[in-house]
Amino acid sequence: LSRTLRQQVYRELFARPEGDEGLTITNQLVMATILVSIVVAVLSTEPRIARNHGSQLLAAEMAFGIVFLVEYAARLWSVAEAPGTGSAAYKRWRFARSVIGIIDLAVVVATLFPFLVTSASVFRIVRLLRLVELMQSGRFSLALREIGKAVSERRYDLFVTLALAGGLILTSATALYWAEGEVQPAVFGSIPRAMWWAVITLTSVGYGDAVPVTVLGKVFASFVALGSIALIALPTGVLAAAFSDGMERHRKRVDAARHLREGHHE
Amino acid sequence: LSRTLRQQVYRELFARPEGDEGLTITNQLVMATILVSIVVAVLSTEPRIARNHGSQLLAAEMAFGIVFLVEYAARLWSVAEAPGTGSAAYKRWRFARSVIGIIDLAVVVATLFPFLVTSASVFRIVRLLRLVELMQSGRFSLALREIGKAVSERRYDLFVTLALAGGLILTSATALYWAEGEVQPAVFGSIPRAMWWAVITLTSVGYGDAVPVTVLGKVFASFVALGSIALIALPTGVLAAAFSDGMERHRKRVDAARHLREGHHE
Amino acid sequence: LSRTLRQQVYRELFARPEGDEGLTITNQLVMATILVSIVVAVLSTEPRIARNHGSQLLAAEMAFGIVFLVEYAARLWSVAEAPGTGSAAYKRWRFARSVIGIIDLAVVVATLFPFLVTSASVFRIVRLLRLVELMQSGRFSLALREIGKAVSERRYDLFVTLALAGGLILTSATALYWAEGEVQPAVFGSIPRAMWWAVITLTSVGYGDAVPVTVLGKVFASFVALGSIALIALPTGVLAAAFSDGMERHRKRVDAARHLREGHHE
Amino acid sequence: LSRTLRQQVYRELFARPEGDEGLTITNQLVMATILVSIVVAVLSTEPRIARNHGSQLLAAEMAFGIVFLVEYAARLWSVAEAPGTGSAAYKRWRFARSVIGIIDLAVVVATLFPFLVTSASVFRIVRLLRLVELMQSGRFSLALREIGKAVSERRYDLFVTLALAGGLILTSATALYWAEGEVQPAVFGSIPRAMWWAVITLTSVGYGDAVPVTVLGKVFASFVALGSIALIALPTGVLAAAFSDGMERHRKRVDAARHLREGHHE
Repeated sequence: LSRTLRQQVYRELFARPEGDEGLTITNQLVMATILVSIVVAVLSTEPRIARNHGSQLLAAEMAFGIVFLVEYAARLWSVAEAPGTGSAAYKRWRFARSVIGIIDLAVVVATLFPFLVTSASVFRIVRLLRLVELMQSGRFSLALREIGKAVSERRYDLFVTLALAGGLILTSATALYWAEGEVQPAVFGSIPRAMWWAVITLTSVGYGDAVPVTVLGKVFASFVALGSIALIALPTGVLAAAFSDGMERHRKRVDAARHLREGHHE
Repeated sequence: LSRTLRQQVYRELFARPEGDEGLTITNQLVMATILVSIVVAVLSTEPRIARNHGSQLLAAEMAFGIVFLVEYAARLWSVAEAPGTGSAAYKRWRFARSVIGIIDLAVVVATLFPFLVTSASVFRIVRLLRLVELMQSGRFSLALREIGKAVSERRYDLFVTLALAGGLILTSATALYWAEGEVQPAVFGSIPRAMWWAVITLTSVGYGDAVPVTVLGKVFASFVALGSIALIALPTGVLAAAFSDGMERHRKRVDAARHLREGHHE
Repeated sequence: LSRTLRQQVYRELFARPEGDEGLTITNQLVMATILVSIVVAVLSTEPRIARNHGSQLLAAEMAFGIVFLVEYAARLWSVAEAPGTGSAAYKRWRFARSVIGIIDLAVVVATLFPFLVTSASVFRIVRLLRLVELMQSGRFSLALREIGKAVSERRYDLFVTLALAGGLILTSATALYWAEGEVQPAVFGSIPRAMWWAVITLTSVGYGDAVPVTVLGKVFASFVALGSIALIALPTGVLAAAFSDGMERHRKRVDAARHLREGHHE
Repeated sequence: LSRTLRQQVYRELFARPEGDEGLTITNQLVMATILVSIVVAVLSTEPRIARNHGSQLLAAEMAFGIVFLVEYAARLWSVAEAPGTGSAAYKRWRFARSVIGIIDLAVVVATLFPFLVTSASVFRIVRLLRLVELMQSGRFSLALREIGKAVSERRYDLFVTLALAGGLILTSATALYWAEGEVQPAVFGSIPRAMWWAVITLTSVGYGDAVPVTVLGKVFASFVALGSIALIALPTGVLAAAFSDGMERHRKRVDAARHLREGHHE
């Protein structure tokens, strides 16, 4: 009897459904808990919230910590049902030192740790990894994998755009360093400083914390600003095509899987 | 005789033309009135205009209020001609508590209300809903519906880009919170505060009210700025394709409807 | 003999070559003079240049004025050769009151006028119209006309994106007026003021002269900033497609014209 | 024996592999050295680094200088093996005054020069040319050449977008000069000054150092900001298409070359 329960727990916590079947109910609950815990972690970094709702945040973190701890324990216990030979202890050790097992443990520690050392709240962002791990199952991860493949097929295109972008950033920074370095040493006084300006201009973000003031600097910067159109155009086309390709293939694969499944039921 | 007039009024005020026939003349006049009343409402929030042209604005609002009131009364009266069984009173009550009826009443109240309480002018923006309601008829709404369908078919693509964007915003904000939180507590002192910076940078708006000042912060922010290209590229491709698809289908549908109509006339 | 010269002058100054043959030599010289005169006019608005090089600028303007005057006189004289019936005086009067004739005269007056009234230098920008007029001939204008046609075919798409953009700008401005109107009356104190912010944010320009400071304002503004991706994506797709279509058709037409011409020569 | 060594050195330093075979091992090492030397040159312009790590930077530059000098000497020596008639001295002189030879020498001088005159560090950016020269060999340069060809085929499209962009920049600048020239003489007091604002706005960079403050100026600037969508859309489409075409052709050519080579081995 106990063995049947362990099998069920194993299937609920570890099963990696194929096609578009999505996560198990337990994993959906775990995912919801992680999402809520990330929101709580984000909010608790805000001093005004931490000051006024400190005890509630602490209680919530404790609750999340217990959920993650219980889940980790359940995984460690039920992983003995994993396929393959070897003793239950061996399988548990193998899980504990796998990437997934370490992420799981890290999340538990990161959640319960702040009770010991309060300043380590940034470490809680490790929950994002947990989210990524959970997304490995189900439809979303298949889509991401197809997009990843489509991007990977275009990696040479992206490398070329990166090389061109790098050359453009370096040339722009050198030109402005040369033109404005002595007039505005704080922002153009070295090529690394001017590179900050070049990146912010070439991505068309344009904060305005570093702006040329001489005529020559403005003429150079005008060409750099126009160059931002080219810098953005090249990867935009590649990435948009890769994304659209990846989603297309994902859709075909899901349809094929559904067709196959329905064929089996007939 | 009175019945024939009511039928005509009903047809003028309620008819939803199919295909590309457009709005009835009365509805075109109502739409023009709404557009003008929106412009007046927008201008009347400006203190300089409100001070110098207060009486003209008041007169214009009163005129709009009367037009909207008359139209609402005419709709309530003529809706008795609506197809289906039931008494005139029942049909009127059904219209009065329908979404369209409530929006109509809200516009009337929002227009005449300021005479009682002057500060409620923001409420006048409810006229935009009235505009959307009117656009339900005619060619424009068909186009919007096709675009809506095309977007809806790509909702999974948009969900994936939203999830990626959310992860990117959260990671960027955490990195800058970690790098600059202590140096600039006002703008990077918590993850929610840093998220404001992350959104403004990743959309390439770049106000410049929150800008990293440390070397590490600038290095992180440079990657975030380059990441903005990816964040913008993915939904841009999806939305542009959805829009172009929707308009294409709309054009085909309009052509088919015209062809059918011309076939009938032969 | 004088008649033959007049014919030659007419052909040089008025001929509108078909296909890709380009401008006549005289018109190329006139175009170069206009381009140079625009550069001079732009530079002469700069106080530092006007102060140090005032006499050179004056001399250049005088030279341009003489060229434009001579050209205008030559056109007025040679237009008597225009095809069609009517006396030379009638044809000259018809030219003098045509759009092209008035632009020509305006350029002459705008160039020589500053000697009388110095502050009217903005008026010199009328030379841009002269440039557009000259571009009516030759290959460039054919390309522009095809692009114009392709844009015109998509005018309904552009109208839909404009309507969506207008609604987005108005809604964004109202939201920020409501959220920040009392905190920052100078920049969000009325919907027209907030619309300036909305346009600058939705086009992702982001000057930073108007930035929300409250939590609610920043939350709204974050969605507006993300909405900028949609606002930019829709017209970008339509315009890029229109431009590419127009250039494609232009290329085909030029090839066809060349093919025809070469066929004639055989 | 010495001749065989010279032949080997020649092949290692000069060989231009066809297809996708990449750089020789020696050239890969040279490329890595150049990349590192560029990073060092960039970092050494930063006063804080130059102050604290002056001697290390000097040592690194000396090492790079020796490497470049040795390579230059080896090239000069081994170029006698170049195909074609003529004495070794003639071939060396031909290499020394070729573009590649001059760039090589310039890099050597630029690296060793700072020991004589310290302020000439900007000149070190000539190493980027050396990088471009090395990239002439191998797969990367083939890709760049195909992209260059694809861009060149669309040069007329780019000329049209440039002409439109120029007209838009000039008109925008004139409008703002006219509207704000007297209110803000420092930033809109002449058309050249207003052109700086126009370029930064039309590329959607938006630093915020020049921002209209009058109602008329803001209305004009709103249209200019919306016009930035068009200005960016046109070249973006052309450049993205050119890049994608160029990479596609490059891929086909590489595949064809590989196929041919494999056919030879069979």
